[in-house]
Amino acid sequence: MTKKLDLKKCIRNIPDFPKAGILFRDITTLLKNKNAFKYAVEELAKKFKNKKIDKVVAVEARGFILGAAIAYKIGAGFIPIRKKGKLPWKTNSASYKLEYGIDILELHQDAIEPNDKVLIIDDLLATGGTIKAVTDLVKELQGKISGIAFLIELTDLKGRDKIKDYPVCSLIKY
Amino acid sequence: MTKKLDLKKCIRNIPDFPKAGILFRDITTLLKNKNAFKYAVEELAKKFKNKKIDKVVAVEARGFILGAAIAYKIGAGFIPIRKKGKLPWKTNSASYKLEYGIDILELHQDAIEPNDKVLIIDDLLATGGTIKAVTDLVKELQGKISGIAFLIELTDLKGRDKIKDYPVCSLIKY
Repeated sequence: MTKKLDLKKCIRNIPDFPKAGILFRDITTLLKNKNAFKYAVEELAKKFKNKKIDKVVAVEARGFILGAAIAYKIGAGFIPIRKKGKLPWKTNSASYKLEYGIDILELHQDAIEPNDKVLIIDDLLATGGTIKAVTDLVKELQGKISGIAFLIELTDLKGRDKIKDYPVCSLIKY
Repeated sequence: MTKKLDLKKCIRNIPDFPKAGILFRDITTLLKNKNAFKYAVEELAKKFKNKKIDKVVAVEARGFILGAAIAYKIGAGFIPIRKKGKLPWKTNSASYKLEYGIDILELHQDAIEPNDKVLIIDDLLATGGTIKAVTDLVKELQGKISGIAFLIELTDLKGRDKIKDYPVCSLIKY
């Protein structure tokens, strides 16, 4: 059994990044700490270890870190969702709103088979716009979303409201 | 013991991506295959399991995938190297030449302690420009580079010549 760790103490808070008024939650101080990294991976993975997950889906770039480690831990395949133009084969795309303009995410059309059990991992749940686009892409390929897990959740921003249809969990809440 | 897999069969070759004349080696078909992903992680990790690696360093975005899974597997911390402006705290930077112009990589100044044993992971060794910049960043923080490992190596491009001072390995050679 792993000793319980206070992961919040491993996060570095950086005021005014990437711009004035934003308090950025820097996870690099957690990732570089081998005990905290292992603990975070295992705490998220254990919630899904008996769900027979086929694929773990994560969004570039930070989402790849926990997503890939958890995919390895639970014995699933790993599926990258990338920004427009980065994936080399046939893709489906979904857009989501940014403060100014929109951003586009892409998923390979052969990434998920119909009825694959999919776990979605990301580092941070804020307003939920990105993760809603991810769920749309997974559903378009007829994947079954078994759960969505985050390292950090900014609860005031109510991102969970956008993904109410799925089991959602997070390890660190602000 | 894991059964030997022919990983080359799991790579998809895509002509003329990202531009005419380039044969792109698409690793997403390997990553999505749970057996191939697990095998690749374990084959790379086992070369370093007794080296007491403190930190695994990888470059965004594709490098994060195998890098993070291997860091978890060998019980090391994970250190992301990112493109300019993405890391929120104090950074050191290194530049490397692209076909037209230069690109800049950044590493947090507190990512590595002096004498930390570092394993560098990337998906692909081509001309070696990126990985040379990574080794410079690690050395600047006085990390000890215990090895550099790639999923794929394009041997004709002689990238190894740029990182001769370190143990280098790759799983798939073209």
